[in-house]
Amino acid sequence: MSIVDRLAAARGDAKADLVLRNANLVNVVSGEIYPTDIVIHDRHVVALGAGYSGRQTVDLSGMFVAPGLIDAHVHVESSLVTPAEFARAVLPHGVTTVITDPHEIANVLGLEGMRYMLENAKRGPLNMYVMASSCVPATDMETSGARLEAEDLAQLVDHPWVLGLAELMNYPGVALGDEGMLDKIALFAHLALDGHAPDMSGAMLNAYVAAGVQSEHECTTLEEAREKLRLGLTIFIREGTTTRNLKPLLPLVNEANHGAICFCTDDRIPADLIDHGSIDHMIRIAITEGVDPLLAIRMGSFNTARHFGLKKYGAVAPGKYADLVVVEDLRDFRPAQVYRGGVLVAADGTMTAPAAPQRRIDLRSTVNLPSTNLDFAVPAESETIRVIGTVADQVVTEHLVERARIVAGCAVSDVERDILKFAMVERHRASGAIGLAFIKGFRLKRGAIAGTVAHDHHNLAVIGADDISMATAVKAIARMGGGLTVADGQDVLASLPLPIAGLLSDLPIEEVRRRYDRMIAAAHALGNRMSDPFMVMSFMGLEVIPKLKLTDQGLVDVEQFKLTPLFV
Amino acid sequence: MSIVDRLAAARGDAKADLVLRNANLVNVVSGEIYPTDIVIHDRHVVALGAGYSGRQTVDLSGMFVAPGLIDAHVHVESSLVTPAEFARAVLPHGVTTVITDPHEIANVLGLEGMRYMLENAKRGPLNMYVMASSCVPATDMETSGARLEAEDLAQLVDHPWVLGLAELMNYPGVALGDEGMLDKIALFAHLALDGHAPDMSGAMLNAYVAAGVQSEHECTTLEEAREKLRLGLTIFIREGTTTRNLKPLLPLVNEANHGAICFCTDDRIPADLIDHGSIDHMIRIAITEGVDPLLAIRMGSFNTARHFGLKKYGAVAPGKYADLVVVEDLRDFRPAQVYRGGVLVAADGTMTAPAAPQRRIDLRSTVNLPSTNLDFAVPAESETIRVIGTVADQVVTEHLVERARIVAGCAVSDVERDILKFAMVERHRASGAIGLAFIKGFRLKRGAIAGTVAHDHHNLAVIGADDISMATAVKAIARMGGGLTVADGQDVLASLPLPIAGLLSDLPIEEVRRRYDRMIAAAHALGNRMSDPFMVMSFMGLEVIPKLKLTDQGLVDVEQFKLTPLFV
Repeated sequence: MSIVDRLAAARGDAKADLVLRNANLVNVVSGEIYPTDIVIHDRHVVALGAGYSGRQTVDLSGMFVAPGLIDAHVHVESSLVTPAEFARAVLPHGVTTVITDPHEIANVLGLEGMRYMLENAKRGPLNMYVMASSCVPATDMETSGARLEAEDLAQLVDHPWVLGLAELMNYPGVALGDEGMLDKIALFAHLALDGHAPDMSGAMLNAYVAAGVQSEHECTTLEEAREKLRLGLTIFIREGTTTRNLKPLLPLVNEANHGAICFCTDDRIPADLIDHGSIDHMIRIAITEGVDPLLAIRMGSFNTARHFGLKKYGAVAPGKYADLVVVEDLRDFRPAQVYRGGVLVAADGTMTAPAAPQRRIDLRSTVNLPSTNLDFAVPAESETIRVIGTVADQVVTEHLVERARIVAGCAVSDVERDILKFAMVERHRASGAIGLAFIKGFRLKRGAIAGTVAHDHHNLAVIGADDISMATAVKAIARMGGGLTVADGQDVLASLPLPIAGLLSDLPIEEVRRRYDRMIAAAHALGNRMSDPFMVMSFMGLEVIPKLKLTDQGLVDVEQFKLTPLFV
Repeated sequence: MSIVDRLAAARGDAKADLVLRNANLVNVVSGEIYPTDIVIHDRHVVALGAGYSGRQTVDLSGMFVAPGLIDAHVHVESSLVTPAEFARAVLPHGVTTVITDPHEIANVLGLEGMRYMLENAKRGPLNMYVMASSCVPATDMETSGARLEAEDLAQLVDHPWVLGLAELMNYPGVALGDEGMLDKIALFAHLALDGHAPDMSGAMLNAYVAAGVQSEHECTTLEEAREKLRLGLTIFIREGTTTRNLKPLLPLVNEANHGAICFCTDDRIPADLIDHGSIDHMIRIAITEGVDPLLAIRMGSFNTARHFGLKKYGAVAPGKYADLVVVEDLRDFRPAQVYRGGVLVAADGTMTAPAAPQRRIDLRSTVNLPSTNLDFAVPAESETIRVIGTVADQVVTEHLVERARIVAGCAVSDVERDILKFAMVERHRASGAIGLAFIKGFRLKRGAIAGTVAHDHHNLAVIGADDISMATAVKAIARMGGGLTVADGQDVLASLPLPIAGLLSDLPIEEVRRRYDRMIAAAHALGNRMSDPFMVMSFMGLEVIPKLKLTDQGLVDVEQFKLTPLFV
C-alpha cells in the first residue's frame, strides 16, 4: 500500500481499512471537541467526516478520541526491562511514542548500547525515537563504560530515528563554552537539543540557553520553571517515580503559555508503570488539579510532537499516523482502546497485539570486577566527615558535615545515627577504583543493598551497615552479571538479575515488578523505610545533580563541580 | 566572533555589543509582557535580564519590543521591484523575515529565476527564505517559460535557504494522486509543504491534506477556514492588495487555536507596501478588531517561525537572532525601530542601514513574440459566449454566459455592456499561441491595458475596447522587454518597464509606485474604476483559481479543470 491508496481512501474512491464512527474527537489543532468519523487506511488517518465506508467499522458513540500520547523525555532503562517489554507496559496507557535518551546503556556500552536501542526502535508496536546521548560520561569525575565524543555521535545525526542531542547535563561545561560540548551542539544544532540544568539561573542560565538548548525537564519549583520558560525553553514537566514535579509546576500552566509545555516521565520503575501508567497518569492528575482536558492532552501529545518536529504525530488529522487513544471519560483519562498505526494494540489496559518478533541482539557482559576482594575500609583522617543527605522524593541531596563513628582507626557505619557506608565500585574495566563515603537516610540497621544501576556511569553502588554484608552483595551482583541485591552478613536475601548491560532484565515486566517488590521488602526488613531505596541509591552517584554525590573517583561537590575529600 | 564570544557575553564575562535597557518585552513564549534588558552580541540575543553592560546601550523605557515580524507566504515579485528594494520597503515595517515562493520568476525563467532569488537571499538586510515552486507551470492548460519537475527541484532540497515545497496549487492533481505532484511531495516530505486549495472541501480536501500538505492561505470564508483548521492545516490568514481575508477570518481566531494561525501578505503592490505596510498592518488591524496584541504578534512572528521549524527566529530569547521590532504603543503597532541581527536597520519608517552591495545577476530577456502582427479577431461561432465575470476585491471570477456583440462575423468588445475583449499572448517562446475571450468588470470605454504580469505563466495579458489599442499595447510591451502599459488607438498613454523577467523593475520602489499610480490614472481615464486594474488583470489568467480564466491555450473552466470553448 502507498500514498496513492491512502488518497483513494481519503477521497472515498476506495474502502478504508477502518472507520471509527461517532467519535468525540479531541482536535488538538483547532482546540475543539466535536463528533466525527475518523477514517484510517494504511497506518494513517486519511479523513475526518461522514460518508466513508470501511472494511472494518467501530462504533465509538459516547467515547472520546485523542492523539496517541507522547513522552517527551524518558530513559527506557529505568523500567529495568527491554524496550519490547517497556512498550508492552506503556502502550495500554495510551503512550504510542516516546522520545528516549539511552544514556544509561550508552554509558555502559557506548555506541553498541545506542545501537541496541535503535535496533529495537525499528520494530515493535511503539514509536521509539532516540536522542543521541550528549554526556557519556557525564563528567570526568567518574569512570563509565564508554566515552562518546562528537565524532562518535556524528554517525547518528542522519539516522531516521534520531531526533537530536539528548539532555546536555554538563550544564556548566556548556555555559562555559567547553569545546567538546560545543562540538556536539554544532553537530545537532539543526535538530532538537534537550537541556538539563537543575537550579541553574541568571547569567549562567542565559549562557546555557544561548548555546542553543531548547528544552528543560529538571525544573522543580515554579520560580525556576518560569525563569526558564521566559528564556524560551520548552518546559518538559516531569513526573517520574522519584522526581514528582507535576503538582508543584502545574500552577505555571495557562492558556497563553501551555504551547511551550510538554509532559515527560524521565524515569519510572515497573510498579509505577503498571499501577499508575505514564503520560496518561500525568494527564489525569493535571485534569484533577483543574487543567482544561484539552490543554492537558496537548501537553501530553501535540506540543511534544511540534517541539520535536514530528510532523506525522501528535494530532488526529489526515496525513498523520493513526496513533489514537480512546477514552470513555475525558476527565478520568483512562485509555479504553489504543491504536498505533491504525491497529488496535491495547484495550482496557491490556495489550491486544501479539508480541512483535524480536531480533536477538547479543551484548557483551559488562560487570568486570577485580579478582581480588574489595576493601571497604575507610582509615580515619579526622573526626568529621562529609555525609550525603538524601531528601525525600528528590534526586538532589544535602551536603552534610557530621561527626564520624570511628572504630579501630577507621570510619564505619553508624546505624544509630543512620550514617551508613556507601561505596561506588568501578565495574566496567576491573580497575579496582572505588569511591567510599557515608550517606544518611537509608536507615539500614543491618545488611547491605547494592546494584549496577547508578546514574549515569552505572558503576556498582553498595550501601551497608557493615563491610561483610557489602562484600556479599557485591559478589552476588558479580555472579549475576549485573543486577540488584540485598544481603545480610554472608546471606543474599533477594536478587534481581539485570544481565543486559547490568541495567535491564530479560524477564516480563510483571515478573520484574514482583521481584523488585521482594527486593524492597527485603531492604525494608533491614530497616529501610524508603518507598524505593534502589531508585534513590541509583541517583546518589549522579554528580551532575546537586549537592553532594559519590562516584568511583570519590565524593563530588556538585556546586563546586569538583571532587572533595571525605574528611573535613 | 563565534558562539564562544556569545557565551562569554551571556555570562557577563565580556561586554556585549548592545544592551537594550528597560524594554517592555513581548515574550511570545511565556505569553507575558514585562520589563527587562535585552542583551545582544554577535547577531544574537544572548541574554535577558539586568546587570549586563554593553559597548552600546539604548534606553527603551516605555517602549515595547517584539520579535521581528515574519511573512509566512509572499511572492516578492508582486512588489514589482528587486528583492533588495522589497527589503527596503518591508524592513521599516518590522518585517525581518519572509518566506517567499518565487514562482512568478520561476514560471518565466525556471531554475535560473529561483537562483536569482536565492542569490538575493544570501545578501541584504532581510532574511529571505525560499519555498521551491511546486507548480511550474501551474497546469498543462497554459504555456509558461519553464517546467520544473521533481528532478529539477531535487537540487534545492538541501539548500540552506530553502524551507520546503511552495503552495501546491494543482490541488485536484494532488488529491487525485498525480504522479508528478506526489514525486515532488515525497522529495520535500520532511520539510514544509504549503497548500493552496481555494474552496476545496469534504473528501477531496481530506485527500489533499492526507497527501502531506501542512498549510493553507487561500481561505476566504470563516466556514472554509474552520474546516481546513480542523483537518490540521496551519491557516495563513492573508491580507494582500487584492485578496483581503483578514477581517472576514479574524472571528476564527481564539486563544485555543491561534497557535495554528499565521499571517501572510501573498501579493502586495508597491503603494500598499509603502502606505500600509505588511505584517505590521495586519497586526494593527487585528488589534483594532479586538484580538489580544500578544496573539496578534504571535501570528505575525512566533507561530510562523514554529510552523516552518525556524528555530532561531520568531522570539526574543537567548540563542535567537536579534531580529526585533520596537513600538511605542502596543495597540497601534507602528515600528519605531527595527533590528535585524542586532543591527538597527530602520527607524521611524525609514531605512537606516546603507543599501547592501548587490551582486549583478544577468538574466536573459524574456519577452519573445512572433515577428508578425498578432490577430485578435474572434470569428463568431454562435451568438452566445462565456464571459469572465470579475468579482470586486477577489481573484475568483464568475462563469457568465452572455449574448455576444457581433460585427462583420466577429465577436467584438461591447463597451456599452462592459464586455471587453481579453487576449492572453504567449510571450516566452514566440509560439504565436493566443487565448481570446471576453471579460466583464474593467469598464474601458476605449483603449487597452496590457502587461506581462499574469499569474502564474506571465504571458502577455491585454484587455481592450478595440483591436488597434490592444495591438499598440502589445507592441509597447515588446519594446520594453516586459512591463505594463495603457494604450489608446495608436498612442501609448503610460508605461512601466519591467525588464527583469517581465516582472520586476530595476527602479526604486518609490519611483515604481509613482509610475504605477500614473498607469492606474491612465486606465481610469479610459473608463476603468477598479482600484487596481493591473492587479485584477494579472489574476484573470490564473487557471487554478475558480471559476473561469483565460490562458494562451484558451478559456479554462476551473471547476471542471479543463479548457472550454468561448462560444456556447
